[in-house]
Parts: sequence; C-alpha cells; structure tokens
Amino acid sequence: MQALQDRIKRDGIDLGKGILKVDGFINHQVDPLLMMEAGRELAARFAGAGATKVLTAEISGIAPALTTALVLGLPLVYARKSKPVTMTEPVYVEAAPSHTKGVAVFLMVSPEFLGPEDRVLIIDDFLASGQTIGALVRLVRHAGAHLVGIGALIEKRFEGGRGQLEALGVPLHALVEITSMSAEGFSFAE
Amino acid sequence: MQALQDRIKRDGIDLGKGILKVDGFINHQVDPLLMMEAGRELAARFAGAGATKVLTAEISGIAPALTTALVLGLPLVYARKSKPVTMTEPVYVEAAPSHTKGVAVFLMVSPEFLGPEDRVLIIDDFLASGQTIGALVRLVRHAGAHLVGIGALIEKRFEGGRGQLEALGVPLHALVEITSMSAEGFSFAE
Repeated sequence: MQALQDRIKRDGIDLGKGILKVDGFINHQVDPLLMMEAGRELAARFAGAGATKVLTAEISGIAPALTTALVLGLPLVYARKSKPVTMTEPVYVEAAPSHTKGVAVFLMVSPEFLGPEDRVLIIDDFLASGQTIGALVRLVRHAGAHLVGIGALIEKRFEGGRGQLEALGVPLHALVEITSMSAEGFSFAE
Repeated sequence: MQALQDRIKRDGIDLGKGILKVDGFINHQVDPLLMMEAGRELAARFAGAGATKVLTAEISGIAPALTTALVLGLPLVYARKSKPVTMTEPVYVEAAPSHTKGVAVFLMVSPEFLGPEDRVLIIDDFLASGQTIGALVRLVRHAGAHLVGIGALIEKRFEGGRGQLEALGVPLHALVEITSMSAEGFSFAE
C-alpha cells in the first residue's frame, strides 16, 4: 500500500534495535483516513476468506482491525491485556512476549465472543517476530474456531515472524513490508 | 441515538453496583457498524465546534473516537495507560481513578501530538463519574490546548459526572443517557 509506505518514509522514526516508531499516525496519534484506506485494502485482500469475525490484540491493533471489520461488515473482537471487572466468566488466556515492552503480556478472550462456529481473520498493526499474532492464533485454537487469514499493516521482514505463520497454511498479507532499517533509511519489499 | 439504546436494552448486562457490561458490542467485541453510526452522530453534534483533534483514552474509547475522527476528518490521539518503548520523550501525565479497575490509572500524552495550536474534542465510551474525562481535560490544559467539546456514547447519569464537566462551559453530549439501573431494567432520559 503506497500511501502507508510513503507515510512510514516521511513520519516513521527508526529508534534503533529494529524498533520503528509510528506514533504519529498509528500508535498514539492515529490518522483515521489512512486507517480507513488500510482497512479497505486488508478487506479486499481477505474478501474471499469467508471470515465471520476479526480478531486483534489491544491496543494498537484496534484501529486497523476496526476499519477492516467495518468494510467486511463483521464483528471485531480485541483480546484484552488486562482483565476488566466486566470480565466475570472464565476466559482463554495466552502469553505473548512483547518486543517493545520487554516483558510477556497476557492476552485474554472470552468464550462468549470466540467459539467453534467462528471463522477468524487476525489483523494487527505489526507483524515482526510473530509473537503477538502467534498468541492470537493459539487463542483461536483454544476456542475451537477456524483461522482463515492473518493480516498486518506493517511487516518487519528482518524479524522473521513470517516463517512460523506461513506454516499455518492460511493467507498472510502485510500492506507494507520493511526488509531492513539502517542509518541509510528503510528498505521495502516490492 | 435509538440504535445504541436498543442495543443496550438487548445486550447490555447490569452487573450490579452501577456496572454496565457492554462487552458484546463496545468493550471486548465491537460492532463496527454501530460504532460508525455513533461516530456519525457524534461528529454531527460537534460539527460546529471547530475541533482540530479528537482525544480519547485507551482502550475502550478508541473505537468511538476513531469513527468520530474519521467522519470529522481529524487526527485522533489516544492517551496511553502504559509507556511503550517508542515513547522516549517527556510526556504529560494525569492520574484517573478507575471505577471499573479499582485503582488509579495514569494517562499519558506526548507533547508531540497535543499543543497550544490544538482545539480538542474529547470522546470516550462512558461518561460516568467523569474521572477519566476529567483527566483528559487536565491533559488538554497541560498542553495549553483549547477544549471545544466532550462527547460520550453512554452516560450513566446516576454517577454524577456531568456536573463537574458542565462547569467547563463546553458542549457536552452523550448519545444515550441512562438514568437508573435496577432489577426492573434500565431507564433512559428522553
């Protein structure tokens, strides 16, 4: 997606150690029009997947997953990282080591909203090491649901998460693929 | 907003002590079409406010704030409750006692994305005691920005937050106003 790639070139900041700061348009300040365009693009790529539900992880996955779900006309479920008082029933829990937080976070989904009847499209902001998306995949399995696709706004190819996810045998798309980050700038896959 | 009120009647669950569970369409599973309709309605109510930015608090404020910002064509900033590694510069911080979490949470906004040039519309899912929105208002002030309106999906009138916020002298709208919750069900303001 050219608009997203251009925005990363313009406003993305390389903080070193492979950390890409996109706080100006995705992770703290959000550009809703860009997210809507990304949602349309992701929805188009997974239009044939027969999804019945979109799943993401709070917090930064919510914006792109919401716009994708909006275009597909599907409910969105976001896995919680902390248990609100309204979550009173037993939940599915999976741990995901976080690259940007340094510690493992727990992702929780209520069986009320994910079950064997669901065909699930996972959408997140980043595909990097694949740890967060991997935890979402395990939540889908725990629920007995059927995984039908995995989409991300930005893939950091150099973190190698794609390999383990491709082994799942479902369509996998990232709108922008960064192959390297260095003092010379970002390199993108065609 | 009739569709939201009908949905609360149908799928909202009274957990007692004034806690309303809306996990089926706002807080864990999200109905994107309902959120889009709510965003259109909030955008219409604040169309004349001259906002340049929408501000909310993660996590559950993101969906309605995103759709509102999308319709208004404005950037959305969500105050963070935890500091990601990408937040490397000094930030504005305010504490907000949380009704549903039992402890105070900290809300953080980077001066990169909120400053004296901004005219800010605050959008959140709930207006209850007004504590979270009050913390967002203080963040706006710290940034030297100008508050132009406050909107929420659902107001719990019986928690009394409206009084302190009305004193701010800016337009204040909730799409659904719940006046009481009891074993007999929900009562709504006309």
